[in-house]
Amino acid sequence: MNPRLEQLHRVAASRASLLSLAGGLPAAELLPRDAIAAASVDVLPASSTDALQYGWPEGDLAIRAWVAERMTARGAPTDPDDVVVTAGAQQALSLVAAVWPAGTRVAIDGETYPAAIETLTLAGHALVDGGPHGRAPLAYVIDGVSNPHGVDRVAPRRAALLAGDAHLIVDEAHVDLRFDSRVPRPLCADAPARCWQVGSFSKVVGPGLRVGWLIPPRERIAEVLAHKRAADLHTGAFAQAVLARWLERADYDELVERARNLYRARAERLVASLARRLPGWHVTVPEGGLSLWVETDLAGDDVAFLAAAIGSGVAVDPGSMFRPFPAGDDAIALRLSFSHAPFAQLDEAVRRLERAATGFRRTREARAA
Amino acid sequence: MNPRLEQLHRVAASRASLLSLAGGLPAAELLPRDAIAAASVDVLPASSTDALQYGWPEGDLAIRAWVAERMTARGAPTDPDDVVVTAGAQQALSLVAAVWPAGTRVAIDGETYPAAIETLTLAGHALVDGGPHGRAPLAYVIDGVSNPHGVDRVAPRRAALLAGDAHLIVDEAHVDLRFDSRVPRPLCADAPARCWQVGSFSKVVGPGLRVGWLIPPRERIAEVLAHKRAADLHTGAFAQAVLARWLERADYDELVERARNLYRARAERLVASLARRLPGWHVTVPEGGLSLWVETDLAGDDVAFLAAAIGSGVAVDPGSMFRPFPAGDDAIALRLSFSHAPFAQLDEAVRRLERAATGFRRTREARAA
Repeated sequence: MNPRLEQLHRVAASRASLLSLAGGLPAAELLPRDAIAAASVDVLPASSTDALQYGWPEGDLAIRAWVAERMTARGAPTDPDDVVVTAGAQQALSLVAAVWPAGTRVAIDGETYPAAIETLTLAGHALVDGGPHGRAPLAYVIDGVSNPHGVDRVAPRRAALLAGDAHLIVDEAHVDLRFDSRVPRPLCADAPARCWQVGSFSKVVGPGLRVGWLIPPRERIAEVLAHKRAADLHTGAFAQAVLARWLERADYDELVERARNLYRARAERLVASLARRLPGWHVTVPEGGLSLWVETDLAGDDVAFLAAAIGSGVAVDPGSMFRPFPAGDDAIALRLSFSHAPFAQLDEAVRRLERAATGFRRTREARAA
Repeated sequence: MNPRLEQLHRVAASRASLLSLAGGLPAAELLPRDAIAAASVDVLPASSTDALQYGWPEGDLAIRAWVAERMTARGAPTDPDDVVVTAGAQQALSLVAAVWPAGTRVAIDGETYPAAIETLTLAGHALVDGGPHGRAPLAYVIDGVSNPHGVDRVAPRRAALLAGDAHLIVDEAHVDLRFDSRVPRPLCADAPARCWQVGSFSKVVGPGLRVGWLIPPRERIAEVLAHKRAADLHTGAFAQAVLARWLERADYDELVERARNLYRARAERLVASLARRLPGWHVTVPEGGLSLWVETDLAGDDVAFLAAAIGSGVAVDPGSMFRPFPAGDDAIALRLSFSHAPFAQLDEAVRRLERAATGFRRTREARAA
């Protein structure tokens, strides 16, 4: 990551008075703290459980069975042994990056999840534009709700993706969070031999558990497990045991429904505030997830704009973070997260953004004059 | 890992009647379950804590400060910002493997930690014999208590390691578990610019938390953090928060002392039983850790010997697991863990091992005749 950008994010995170539209963090009030605490107490004292001991690289059977059941219900028959429990979706991505030979060409969108860009690049792969003419043996797509746009960018090209012969890394980290409650049929249902499905409990139950999963093509699972063992032996047995106990007792779908409702209300408020206060900005109205994408009417260095925004008391994610390739111009785009800031503060956050934009434009005009 | 060996280990783990001298697992009765449960309850309900939220790649400041303080007390002045919290010592190794360019020659002992062999190999490095004439830009050593031998194999060559110019991966996973309570001066105290210190809470507090650390040379830390972010964004915030709370309240040194005493008693019992029942086997008397190394008077395929041992009701780790290079002959060596089997069952485990050895020798002689 750009060190200046990281420095600004750290400053922003440490400033209590700041309102944050950055980071894509789930809402603190949704995370099931009490139920996770109860589950922790349950799985620990009994010496018959293995919550503090070493485990197997594929992870806890109860979690793999839960994932397999949901994938099966969505149309992709899945066995628990097809699933590898990972340290969040991020480790699933890094395992896929590790099993493909360095230098693989990977088709990727022009705006996408920053840590996917970093992981694929650090593993030595060559990122290529995933647009209509982008052909590569491997492609990275975000299904259901894209990051940073908050809309489904797979559905319109689903047929094309399935008709091709490229392997697909299918990131479903936000798939349960569509406001219309539609959960897409998994791409692996129709191309099991070339889909690497990536999922996570981070957006709904909590990122701090670091539990996600990878469902690779069946014949690649041994290779994935070898890399998983090399990476960290296995995903935290404690976090897995706690999560498994929570899944046994809690109503995951009910929590998802609450999350959708809370995020939809915040998204609507943010969209409305932006339309009122910054009518010159083009907002992509989100269909789900934690964030939306906005093309501002500003031009220049978007990290400098972040600095200005922090000066006005609001944090955002500069669009350049999400771009694997240089942009064609210096128009500033932003990702704005509506997920973490309290509903009642969203309008004030946009007011600060408006002030930052005015100041930024003036400074630029003064320099040009 | 050899798939046949892995299959046997899984069979062994699933058989309740089996006594296990395999795996190097800490004693179940030492792991502080109740205190960890109490810490979990403490860190979760308060929404002011971040136990379920995203964190920074370097990890929890309280844990980094604890590690830095102990390293400083051992003679290596360390700042919390020098420390990266990892998913166990294993991820620390995989991060070192990732930041060195693929194809680096790495000097390694002829018998060493299996997952270090796997990680370095999968990262594309070339392992070379770390004996007196083995020269390479990077070396992997296990300080304090070696695995699988259970003795200090660094002290005798400490001066040579410090006199050389190779970078050193210094695995201290077992360093607190010497029976004589001696904790060596860290190699990084005398060669900070070329030591990559690896440590872990797994052997004392519990592997299931997956919390360890890496202290790289100071000028390499940004690179390590980029790879850490690519690997899994950050180590589980929940496990870190629980561990930090536990460290605040518990007496780590008292737990270490109890572990040393328990393991020493088990080690002495295992050594005594082996001397009595299998006097032809050469036992390396352990100075600490969880396991000892034994050169048997058997020859042949050591994985076949494991199958025979499982047939007799006891599991062991075949010596070939620990060898990065082919052995010169087919003499069978074993790693025997005294850490996990109850004290009262160790003699019975050796009785079963004796029976397995007798059967194995007879089968071999019958085949040869």
